Amino acid sequence: MDESLAFASIGELGNMLRRRDVSPVELTEFFFERIEQFDPTINAYISLSHERARAQAQAAESLMARGHFLGPLHGIPLAFKDLIDVEGMGTTGGSILRRDHVAEVDAHVAGRLFREGAVLLGKTHMVEFAFGGAGINHHYGTPWNPWDAAVSRLPGGSSSGSGVAVAAGLAPAALGSDTGGSVRIPSSFCGLVGLKPTFGAISNSGVLPLDPTLDCIGPLCQTVEDCAVLFHALCGPDPSDPNTLDGPIFSGIDALEGDVKGMRLCFPREYFWSEVDEEVEAAVRATAQVFADLNVHVDEISLEVLDDLSVWRSGANVTAVESYLFHQHDLRENLDQFDEIVSARMLDGRDISAVDFLSQLRAREAMRSKALQTLEAVDFLITPTTPFAAPPVHEVDVDDVYFRINGLCLRNTSAVNTLGLCAISLPCGLTRDGLPIGLQLIGKPGDEARLLRLARAYEQAAEWSDMHPDMTLFA
Amino acid sequence: MDESLAFASIGELGNMLRRRDVSPVELTEFFFERIEQFDPTINAYISLSHERARAQAQAAESLMARGHFLGPLHGIPLAFKDLIDVEGMGTTGGSILRRDHVAEVDAHVAGRLFREGAVLLGKTHMVEFAFGGAGINHHYGTPWNPWDAAVSRLPGGSSSGSGVAVAAGLAPAALGSDTGGSVRIPSSFCGLVGLKPTFGAISNSGVLPLDPTLDCIGPLCQTVEDCAVLFHALCGPDPSDPNTLDGPIFSGIDALEGDVKGMRLCFPREYFWSEVDEEVEAAVRATAQVFADLNVHVDEISLEVLDDLSVWRSGANVTAVESYLFHQHDLRENLDQFDEIVSARMLDGRDISAVDFLSQLRAREAMRSKALQTLEAVDFLITPTTPFAAPPVHEVDVDDVYFRINGLCLRNTSAVNTLGLCAISLPCGLTRDGLPIGLQLIGKPGDEARLLRLARAYEQAAEWSDMHPDMTLFA
Repeated sequence: MDESLAFASIGELGNMLRRRDVSPVELTEFFFERIEQFDPTINAYISLSHERARAQAQAAESLMARGHFLGPLHGIPLAFKDLIDVEGMGTTGGSILRRDHVAEVDAHVAGRLFREGAVLLGKTHMVEFAFGGAGINHHYGTPWNPWDAAVSRLPGGSSSGSGVAVAAGLAPAALGSDTGGSVRIPSSFCGLVGLKPTFGAISNSGVLPLDPTLDCIGPLCQTVEDCAVLFHALCGPDPSDPNTLDGPIFSGIDALEGDVKGMRLCFPREYFWSEVDEEVEAAVRATAQVFADLNVHVDEISLEVLDDLSVWRSGANVTAVESYLFHQHDLRENLDQFDEIVSARMLDGRDISAVDFLSQLRAREAMRSKALQTLEAVDFLITPTTPFAAPPVHEVDVDDVYFRINGLCLRNTSAVNTLGLCAISLPCGLTRDGLPIGLQLIGKPGDEARLLRLARAYEQAAEWSDMHPDMTLFA
Repeated sequence: MDESLAFASIGELGNMLRRRDVSPVELTEFFFERIEQFDPTINAYISLSHERARAQAQAAESLMARGHFLGPLHGIPLAFKDLIDVEGMGTTGGSILRRDHVAEVDAHVAGRLFREGAVLLGKTHMVEFAFGGAGINHHYGTPWNPWDAAVSRLPGGSSSGSGVAVAAGLAPAALGSDTGGSVRIPSSFCGLVGLKPTFGAISNSGVLPLDPTLDCIGPLCQTVEDCAVLFHALCGPDPSDPNTLDGPIFSGIDALEGDVKGMRLCFPREYFWSEVDEEVEAAVRATAQVFADLNVHVDEISLEVLDDLSVWRSGANVTAVESYLFHQHDLRENLDQFDEIVSARMLDGRDISAVDFLSQLRAREAMRSKALQTLEAVDFLITPTTPFAAPPVHEVDVDDVYFRINGLCLRNTSAVNTLGLCAISLPCGLTRDGLPIGLQLIGKPGDEARLLRLARAYEQAAEWSDMHPDMTLFA
């Protein structure tokens, strides 16, 4: 089968399925063959669901044979980060503590995609309990970033396997989750498009939590349109998750139509640029011309709320408290079974006082109000997603270095979660070493439609989205 | 002027105003005269607003003279608990630390009532920072419960002055606030009707907080209908308080019309009855026959959530954390200026861990879900408001005794706040010593209309609402 299928978008695959150039079963087998070929090196998948995938693909094929097309995800193989429950499969959350776990019910998001005719290839590796941005997992192994066949580089985390699976052409698209950047960081390091929706846009029911006040399911894809297709299938209220927002906030990919002319895009002057690699900065700043050519109004801005954010970040880690609360039994009884780089951060949560914690939550609310006020005058912010392209794992996976680099990986993305915004990461160039560079576009809560429209306009003008790693080097 | 004006309801006073039997200015002067006569003993008011009241009364009078009636509060004198901002007046919150405070803007609730033509007599005493249910204040003095002229008995707190002002006929009605029972406890001890609305029904903008996740403004009145009038004037969304619920939840006193037949009222078997005074229990249980005669379905029920609540109450005090955070500067710098019975409880908040705090919040959410499920089968619960009628202050104001009695005062009412419900307290009898006994009716969130309807039906059938203390004993 044509190798180009491996890096085709959901949209392209859908067209092929409808034209019967390929069948759901053939497509599914094609990806399983690639997984068999590359995953021993790439290490994207923690578990495969051959039987379910074949049943789903056959069901999709039967419907299609009768002329029924369920929509853009009908017959499309996907991969899920291994914190999303799928009935009868384990949900390890990247932890050996959950090695024997078996989910009894599909997560809300899984059920939605299955009803749309999607096919589950398997579950992907992740940072243990999703608590880390670099992508390292000492128990199940760190997925190999396919953009460098010679040296293992950070895949980005915590949705490391989802990023690597899509980048290596082992799935057309994958679900991740983003609490501080866990969809966007692997998208940046792996040259993908990754959407962090508004908190509450997508149900977290049946998803292992990291910080239930921040956790967002999000897609990692080859194109902006694919993100839009998945976002549309996933978003909307769910009575079983009281945090879901009323009413769908995104009406579908038709919302991407229309001009971006007159949209106001601002480069923040501060916060996002310190310790940013020169090549990354140059690539991100160079996008200004592309946006200007699209008649987007491009400007610079100083945001007072970023000063507050810097102070806030030096205060109590609220996610550490949330995760300590959730994992406290195991942290007390089975500490040796945690990845040390994860338990170290969770244990920080144990000694935080309620007053400091609550003070941080209140300060976060205040920053969110301030950010919203600022974004009244500015539609979107533009920043590097990560301060650098994927560094080698062996340079990062050293005690003190890890926590510093992990913090830098998360800095630009976690600002979005903390401030209650939505954002997308998409490729905007390659370094001299041939590594992808990620651009982050940040929008107001609920403004995904326009955010995706702006991102697609850039994508079409810049055409970085067609690039993919040379997988023949892994043969 | 007729002494009976002192204990007339808002409804009766409104009729007199419309008939021009009395003018707003006369009515205001009448209450100021009573305040001058009785308040040196009763100690209900911390500050009076003579000038404002006269200006408001004259403005009301001018409008009425031209035939304009703004509604049921037009020309009605009221008193506010001294944690509600009124432009140009102090808001002490019952604390000497705020002796020199002057508010610059009216609280949202104050503005609403003023626009309805209400007249502010003054601000009422309260427990320091609203943190206590007994009603004691060591710095400004404990208001005297007018039901006993010989012995100073607990007024109930924290809206102690509001309760005493209305009970003694020094205001037709008053605003209080209820975080754990602070409207209902003084209503119970002072023989009044007091409503604790659903959290978020009424804006807290411009109100000094105790626990912003629980604080509710509520009226203390002579009748259920008066509570309904004030609740209608106060409830509804306010953009400056993000916790306010969308849309008004109460359409006005017309909502009280209609039958109570078939409503399901249950006596909980557990939790609310331990250490309840024999006379109080007898009076509350005797109401079953009154409700049955109204064709209300009366039953008993065991509520599992009350077991959870008992465990929860022995855990971290979340209100202590909230109040410690708000007052931490003064608790560190000016501890000697706090009432010791208040600072002791706030300081408990300092040493609570974030994990225990968050765990309590999550457990509270879970209990609320469970309570809602239970109340699907049961419309209303009925309990004693307080386990006993007002005890003498000198018996309670002893270190260890205080905290035990304060806890008992709050037990039955705070369950309502914790479980996210609404409730009303109304008189259901007198003890042999001639002290009022309070009945608590508890309803589902947002079900104020039916709760008030049920309460009014009882009130009309039982006619305890006409009783008031003999103020000639204070002459």
